[in-house]
Amino acid sequence: MKVRAFSTTVPVVPGPDSETLFDVGIAGAGQLAQMTVLAAVPLGLRIAVLGGPDEPASHSAAGRVDGSFSDAAALRKLGRVSRVVTLESEFVDPTVLAEIVAAGTPVRPDPSSLVHVQDKALQKQLLAGANLPLPRWAVADTAEEFEAIGRDFGWPLMLKRRRLGYDGYGNATCHNVDEACDAFRRLASDDGVLVEAFVAFERELAVMIARRHSGGALAYPVVETVQRNHVCSHVIAPAPISRAQTAAATETALAAAEAANGVGVTGVELFLGADGSILVNELAPRPHNSGHFTIEACETSQFENHLRGVLDLPLGPCQMRTTAAAMVNVLGTRTGLPAPDLGGALDVPGAHVHLYGKAEVRVGRKMGHVTTLGATTAGALERATVAAEALNR
Amino acid sequence: MKVRAFSTTVPVVPGPDSETLFDVGIAGAGQLAQMTVLAAVPLGLRIAVLGGPDEPASHSAAGRVDGSFSDAAALRKLGRVSRVVTLESEFVDPTVLAEIVAAGTPVRPDPSSLVHVQDKALQKQLLAGANLPLPRWAVADTAEEFEAIGRDFGWPLMLKRRRLGYDGYGNATCHNVDEACDAFRRLASDDGVLVEAFVAFERELAVMIARRHSGGALAYPVVETVQRNHVCSHVIAPAPISRAQTAAATETALAAAEAANGVGVTGVELFLGADGSILVNELAPRPHNSGHFTIEACETSQFENHLRGVLDLPLGPCQMRTTAAAMVNVLGTRTGLPAPDLGGALDVPGAHVHLYGKAEVRVGRKMGHVTTLGATTAGALERATVAAEALNR
Repeated sequence: MKVRAFSTTVPVVPGPDSETLFDVGIAGAGQLAQMTVLAAVPLGLRIAVLGGPDEPASHSAAGRVDGSFSDAAALRKLGRVSRVVTLESEFVDPTVLAEIVAAGTPVRPDPSSLVHVQDKALQKQLLAGANLPLPRWAVADTAEEFEAIGRDFGWPLMLKRRRLGYDGYGNATCHNVDEACDAFRRLASDDGVLVEAFVAFERELAVMIARRHSGGALAYPVVETVQRNHVCSHVIAPAPISRAQTAAATETALAAAEAANGVGVTGVELFLGADGSILVNELAPRPHNSGHFTIEACETSQFENHLRGVLDLPLGPCQMRTTAAAMVNVLGTRTGLPAPDLGGALDVPGAHVHLYGKAEVRVGRKMGHVTTLGATTAGALERATVAAEALNR
Repeated sequence: MKVRAFSTTVPVVPGPDSETLFDVGIAGAGQLAQMTVLAAVPLGLRIAVLGGPDEPASHSAAGRVDGSFSDAAALRKLGRVSRVVTLESEFVDPTVLAEIVAAGTPVRPDPSSLVHVQDKALQKQLLAGANLPLPRWAVADTAEEFEAIGRDFGWPLMLKRRRLGYDGYGNATCHNVDEACDAFRRLASDDGVLVEAFVAFERELAVMIARRHSGGALAYPVVETVQRNHVCSHVIAPAPISRAQTAAATETALAAAEAANGVGVTGVELFLGADGSILVNELAPRPHNSGHFTIEACETSQFENHLRGVLDLPLGPCQMRTTAAAMVNVLGTRTGLPAPDLGGALDVPGAHVHLYGKAEVRVGRKMGHVTTLGATTAGALERATVAAEALNR
């Protein structure tokens, strides 16, 4: 059974005189929107997405506004046809989102809070202001500053673009001032770059936090995330850390999501230091790749709780309903049409296959993921890896 | 948060010259099709449904053929745009399905087998031929025959319409020959009615069987189903019966699905007699209301395994991933627009809400269901009942 690219006939939301109202408008139509749509249907909620006809969520959403999240007119239209607007990416222009709010449609999380999350330097400031443990950081924009920071923090340094960076795009590890100046030329905006001390972490962790608009927050289990080439390769749940570390990670993530005024799901990435300490790496004001395991492994998925939080409905329990789980990403290794071996993947016992229906494979592109449940994370990871490889054709 | 009836813009499959091909065409667009669509999307499978624009599955399917399963032209069109056709109801004309097969699109289960399932008398014959334990039965079409059967089986007798009966529609319990003659006038077709000995059962049970087109079958856990006014009120999993009874029910259901040549999921309803014996009540060649608990409670849902079986993909494991589960139907108690109290339902910890998005409530109509997981079926049932009541507004 090969999955091929189909021509498609997707419902497009009619013009602004339309009376069609959707319960939630998502400013995007990628895989996060797709999985949110799948969580919405059983709740009787109708979702409008914003995207092109061939994007993942466009195939199953109740409605689609044609355009992209960088198109102000399309965003405004999404606001007009939705009762509440939410995001699947933090890169949406907060000025346009504020206009949507002014026109009467709430945006959750609120655009005034998003500003402090979109810019990685402002995000550090926000988290530091909430007394959260962070790697040492600074904003720099000259060679002299790099030299001073290097003397202070020690090399290597991480340089990060302040805005629009993701999955390692917009990041550079620099071992000396020359590399830092090179990276600066590629990554800096008018207001410089973010510089971080390099963290020799023991593990990378993540915690999804669900928060309800009118108050109340729940934390999902702490997971370990493993990156390859700066992209999440796989996740194991629960993270193989001590009780005290789990408690510290959970508390830190709850506080970070609160500092960011998260509504719905906030994904919080953490470092576990060699000394056992927990540091906040960064956060995303939306469901997160490291929370995909929750679909099968937890009582309520991150996507359902995102909807519940954003619509101010009671949050669902976040605990695991299995001993252990693993999630492996299907990351493109070539360019062309997808040709996943679905039968091969489903031949792996307990492989939960998630294909995003993207029309084209690209190297490193997230094409899908596989989750497995089990008695041990090692066993689950082994099976998920085999299934993900079958899908990566 | 009230769910209201929206106007809708659903993709309608273009004319017969279209090249759009769907992986699976479902001859219907009700809640079973809806839940199958939700299982299909993560697998990268594109589903076309057959129905009107406001039916449950029409809101999220990749394509829709306008019409109904009783419309031969629409069915033929579904066959033309699909790689394989399957059913959500056993009442589809097998002659038209045979034409679809002749035109090159497989129908699974096969129409030649469906004939023996659609007609309750032929179904009895089929099951009896496979030596499966059945309540005593006969086909009758005169008052004299009722008298003879009543003398032989004892009163009361169950009279059942041979075709198109469901959820008690088409059934009558008759305590004497006068009642039987009355019921006969309402229920009989040219070839009479099915008459069954009344079974004083201890419990009603159900087992979903998943079968793959090219061979191989798996059984889901045995559940207890509780009917009120001939409609399933709730299901508890696992059924509170002995190991030996569980084994007998499972074996009987596997044999019944095999006798019926089931492909994908076959729902087998059973009686547990007062003496501990297992009898087959009837079967449905498709996912079944008593299998909805599998969405959250089992490793692979009945809907995903229906797709896997029909597409000849490896079946997924059927075992429970929780100790106990309960499923309560939301059955309409009035006529009008649905006004479920979604917040009230979601306030129940661990309530998994499934609303079917039907535009109108009718008395007894299946509007949705709630599943809960737990340590005991009693605890799960209590919570599911509270949540289902909140939705029944």
